[in-house]
Amino acid sequence: MENLFWIGFIGAAAALLFALSRFRNVMKYSEGTDTMKKIAAAIRRGANAYLKRQYKSVAVFFLVMAVVLACLALLGMVSPFVPFAFVTGGVWSCLAGFIGMKVATAANSRTAHAASESLNRGLRVAFSSGAVMGFTVVGLGILDISIWFAVLRYGFHREAAEIATTMVMFGMGASAAALFARVGGGIFTKAADVGADLVGKVEAGIPEDDPRNPATISDNVGDNVGDVAGMGADLYESYVGSILATFAIGAAAGYGWNGMFLPVVLAVAGIFCSLIGTFFIRTGEKASQRELLKTLRTGTYFAAALAAVAAVPLTYFVMRGVTERWWGILISIFCGLIAGCAIGYFTEYFTSDTYRPTQDLAGTSETGAATVIIGGVSLGMKSTIAPILIIAVAVVVSFLTAGGTLRTNASGYAEFFSCGLYGIGIAAVGMLSTLGITLATDAYGPVADNAGGIAEMSGLGKEVRERTDALDSLGNTTAATGKGFAIGSAALTALALLVSYIDIAKSGMDYAPDLSITNPAVLVGVFIGAMLVFIFSALTMSAVQRAARSIVVEVRRQFREIAGLMEGTAEPDYEACVDLCTRGALKEMILPSILAVVVPILTGLILGVEGVVGLLTGAAVTGFAMAVFMANAGGAWDNAKKYIESGQLGGKGSDCHKAAVIGDTVGDPFKDTSGPSLNILIKLVSTVSIVFCGMIVKLSIF
Amino acid sequence: MENLFWIGFIGAAAALLFALSRFRNVMKYSEGTDTMKKIAAAIRRGANAYLKRQYKSVAVFFLVMAVVLACLALLGMVSPFVPFAFVTGGVWSCLAGFIGMKVATAANSRTAHAASESLNRGLRVAFSSGAVMGFTVVGLGILDISIWFAVLRYGFHREAAEIATTMVMFGMGASAAALFARVGGGIFTKAADVGADLVGKVEAGIPEDDPRNPATISDNVGDNVGDVAGMGADLYESYVGSILATFAIGAAAGYGWNGMFLPVVLAVAGIFCSLIGTFFIRTGEKASQRELLKTLRTGTYFAAALAAVAAVPLTYFVMRGVTERWWGILISIFCGLIAGCAIGYFTEYFTSDTYRPTQDLAGTSETGAATVIIGGVSLGMKSTIAPILIIAVAVVVSFLTAGGTLRTNASGYAEFFSCGLYGIGIAAVGMLSTLGITLATDAYGPVADNAGGIAEMSGLGKEVRERTDALDSLGNTTAATGKGFAIGSAALTALALLVSYIDIAKSGMDYAPDLSITNPAVLVGVFIGAMLVFIFSALTMSAVQRAARSIVVEVRRQFREIAGLMEGTAEPDYEACVDLCTRGALKEMILPSILAVVVPILTGLILGVEGVVGLLTGAAVTGFAMAVFMANAGGAWDNAKKYIESGQLGGKGSDCHKAAVIGDTVGDPFKDTSGPSLNILIKLVSTVSIVFCGMIVKLSIF
Repeated sequence: MENLFWIGFIGAAAALLFALSRFRNVMKYSEGTDTMKKIAAAIRRGANAYLKRQYKSVAVFFLVMAVVLACLALLGMVSPFVPFAFVTGGVWSCLAGFIGMKVATAANSRTAHAASESLNRGLRVAFSSGAVMGFTVVGLGILDISIWFAVLRYGFHREAAEIATTMVMFGMGASAAALFARVGGGIFTKAADVGADLVGKVEAGIPEDDPRNPATISDNVGDNVGDVAGMGADLYESYVGSILATFAIGAAAGYGWNGMFLPVVLAVAGIFCSLIGTFFIRTGEKASQRELLKTLRTGTYFAAALAAVAAVPLTYFVMRGVTERWWGILISIFCGLIAGCAIGYFTEYFTSDTYRPTQDLAGTSETGAATVIIGGVSLGMKSTIAPILIIAVAVVVSFLTAGGTLRTNASGYAEFFSCGLYGIGIAAVGMLSTLGITLATDAYGPVADNAGGIAEMSGLGKEVRERTDALDSLGNTTAATGKGFAIGSAALTALALLVSYIDIAKSGMDYAPDLSITNPAVLVGVFIGAMLVFIFSALTMSAVQRAARSIVVEVRRQFREIAGLMEGTAEPDYEACVDLCTRGALKEMILPSILAVVVPILTGLILGVEGVVGLLTGAAVTGFAMAVFMANAGGAWDNAKKYIESGQLGGKGSDCHKAAVIGDTVGDPFKDTSGPSLNILIKLVSTVSIVFCGMIVKLSIF
Repeated sequence: MENLFWIGFIGAAAALLFALSRFRNVMKYSEGTDTMKKIAAAIRRGANAYLKRQYKSVAVFFLVMAVVLACLALLGMVSPFVPFAFVTGGVWSCLAGFIGMKVATAANSRTAHAASESLNRGLRVAFSSGAVMGFTVVGLGILDISIWFAVLRYGFHREAAEIATTMVMFGMGASAAALFARVGGGIFTKAADVGADLVGKVEAGIPEDDPRNPATISDNVGDNVGDVAGMGADLYESYVGSILATFAIGAAAGYGWNGMFLPVVLAVAGIFCSLIGTFFIRTGEKASQRELLKTLRTGTYFAAALAAVAAVPLTYFVMRGVTERWWGILISIFCGLIAGCAIGYFTEYFTSDTYRPTQDLAGTSETGAATVIIGGVSLGMKSTIAPILIIAVAVVVSFLTAGGTLRTNASGYAEFFSCGLYGIGIAAVGMLSTLGITLATDAYGPVADNAGGIAEMSGLGKEVRERTDALDSLGNTTAATGKGFAIGSAALTALALLVSYIDIAKSGMDYAPDLSITNPAVLVGVFIGAMLVFIFSALTMSAVQRAARSIVVEVRRQFREIAGLMEGTAEPDYEACVDLCTRGALKEMILPSILAVVVPILTGLILGVEGVVGLLTGAAVTGFAMAVFMANAGGAWDNAKKYIESGQLGGKGSDCHKAAVIGDTVGDPFKDTSGPSLNILIKLVSTVSIVFCGMIVKLSIF
């Protein structure tokens, strides 16, 4: 079986070539008028400048960590490959985000221009650019894994188990880079957005994306560096992490090469299924929003169904030789695919204004901003029920069908137990196998958003703005669905990583750790994990607030000091705002990111492996619930505002609208900074723990 | 040692007699003018009417549950004492709340009148009434335990271990009654408060507690039924729960009668220490707010120090015979006492406007309501760090000093392990031993708040209002401290109950359950526990919102339809609002309360004991973090608003103030409904699980 891994290169090539063809397709469209070109160039410049400086900061962190890891490698506490893999993981993850940003900033004006011709053309450009990002992420992910596999197998002649336990450590670089990208980009985008809204919309009373607002370019830059580059890095990391964790669990379950090959071949199959799915996304000119949504959904669900069908012969072929339970593993894969779609559906139910919850939330604006906030918080918290139950069912079912039983004796952890856990890992891989297309529908959102901004700023006609609005509003829903997917896969991946961690830790310990919940070290670890989630959310949220405040001050200053700005005879200083956002984001992203690395190590040094296991559990569980809460509350607030703007409850400018705008502003850091960063946090603490496991085992106090 | 348990009756008698003397002392004061008497009577009538109807609803629930428990007892799945103990626990818990409410509604006008004479007199009346409540709770608590002990020991001649495992089930009645009281009262008080503020303060622009506002009496009734009766029932339950859980753990650790006697004797000693502490609370006429706070603190800290001193000979005398580690158990007690005070201190730091966090929060109002909300959410989340670290340290230290070690082999759970867990249980008892006085300083708050309302409504002079404001503002801080205490003890008690649960479950199982975190049943249980916390918070919050909305509609109607209301020539229909709040609260409290009972049973039936253990852990950890977050965010918003009202940032009526009022309104259900209810939730799920354990073991699917 180990000689079939070259299939990974085929998948990578297919994905990357398709991404290239989509990119070319995007570039064929016209950028539109000179004004549009100028605005697009300013956004591009801002995004480039920010990412360059972000990567510089990240490089410093990576340098320090690489040195630390090299020292640990010299002391024999980590594999000598880890420092290198750490760097490559980070570079690929950043690259995935960077390419996504590049194409998004090229596609925004083109989408606006295409939308001025027809809705269908607009959709095609925006979706094509999303596809570039989606397929780049999966292509680079599978390429990274295949290269390292080839190096370890054919360069260093390692055996299956060794490759598996070495490669699971490679996720840390991608996780760390993703966290920086998500947190930094998230702070940038929301500082700009909140700052622009607070002064522009609320104080000065000018519309969103009005060219007179000095923060409007920053706002559009933010969409690209946060929602595109950040999300790309995030999902790159989930994708790679789920495959690598399944490698390690497969080794523990004794499935050898077969257990490792299955996730790879599923991922490759998923790439081709996603590819086919993209051809189903097209729409007629008179399409309503519902039809737009339907075409995007058709593509996604079709790809998932196709992947499920393809999984049948693949699983049979790969696993039949090592376990009679190949059909159980197949069911686990189905669990993952279904769970992903189901979480997506419920996310949409809770956040789209075509359903009751968000409509009711809009209704709470009648009694003012306070009730909008209470209603949104309540809605977000309530919405955790669906994803948690879905994940719970997926975990139990995939564990049981893959051969595990829930009742084991205390000495437990026998072979069949690992087999069950393999089911959980492979469910995560199944959920992410069609990432190419889910990510494409997701990344399309910020492009449409940007296109709307460019249409507004360059004074395109009302019908163009209406079309980009339709595309954008749809983007909000698909973004919510995409976030549901991201968090669902993050939870499963985190669980898979937790299991790998325990396997790896146990193999290096001279006693059997008591991981039962009554062990105070475990229990305290769970508390610390939950605390980490709360602190991390608090820090990222207050970071947005501080950065937004500096934008508010700057925008107010420009309104005051630049003569003729409000009359439209003078231009605002966009660059100043971009620069402020950049500095704010880079400064504020440090502390939460460092925390995510330091807390698990410190916990390990004090409370040992038991404490770390508790921490990973607490962080995964609380982080999952909190991420769903924040993403959905934020999404619902946003769409409740849009619902009112569509003419309900008095429409734009009414008291209800003002209350809903406050809800939306609160929701901004919820849904685009803190919430999505938590996905990465829960995986980063796992990968950090795995990498530093050897050190913890040797040096912990208790 | 078993023949010394009569000491419990001495402690109960002392506490109850002292409560009676304080009650007489309160009643000696004059109720003031006729207007004041009339208003006080209206509040009393409303509170009585509400509690009567609440108890009726609760009685239905208790009847149903008692029948269910009786059936289980007949089937041999629970001890035959449980149905009776369930009812007595509920009755005592309700009684504690009822007496607290009685004295609070008698003391409010007396406090207002006394404050019109001098600040010191006002403080004395308010504090005396708080003391009635505090000492009633501890007196009834220890009385309940002593009576049941006598019945089981001398009536039925049971042995130590049997008494311990039987009595730990007795907490469920108190928990269930407390949950209804907290949730129902919390919804009542905040529906009235939010409703009154939204229309009165924001729309009509009349001050708080203005007699023209039809919801103002409901608001004051709410303080009594929510903050007083609810809190009394809550802490009654923590107090009894911590002692009973320690009984059970002591039995598992093999400490026999001695292990059971220690918590009782500590509680009795704590009663006397609290009693002495109350005499230190007095103040001069010109006392600043800082001095007022200092005198309350002196009393509390002095009582805690005294209890620590008393614990030395008591622990030596009681435990020396059964373990050499008596000094370790003593340190565990210290841990509890110190942790309680430390959590109280940090709660104050995060929520009092004399410190930076709340002042900074007030500053965020300069950029509008949205940033106030983001800032408060962030502050609340950040504030979880202190209590969690304190509890973590307390758990680890008390476990280790009491004789446990963190490294056990997988078959673990040996004697020394139980000894360590006994340390955690006794730490909870230590923390709550001076509950008499901490609760007195806490319960004093709503009385002062009511007094202020009565002073305003009956048109007492400005200097009286200033004095009651000083008392009230202090009450907000002590309430925050009290809440910190309540939640800290709830966490420790929940952990102790969790441990007892595992002991009891294991004794009834024919296999050793794998409680390690890798067991998917445990893991999924943790997810469900976290979900329960989110759903419960969501339900209680949206309940407040719905009930508040009906108040808003009613108040608007009265403003519109009652001629001469705004001019002060006609009286509003207060009763209508009280009635609406009552109906709203009773209707809305059902679902969350039922959920707390049903979810652990269902989880047990599906996932077995392992799933329940996970659920209890997830609920305790996430519930703890969430309760701290909500209580502190709410407290900080409230005090940030008060800070602005004191003249900062433009003072009352400024834009900053308006933004802060929105924050305060959002904070209301956070800090007075959802947050404190979570304390009870995490204990109720534990006691429910313990009671239904026998059934779960026999009937669970997996």
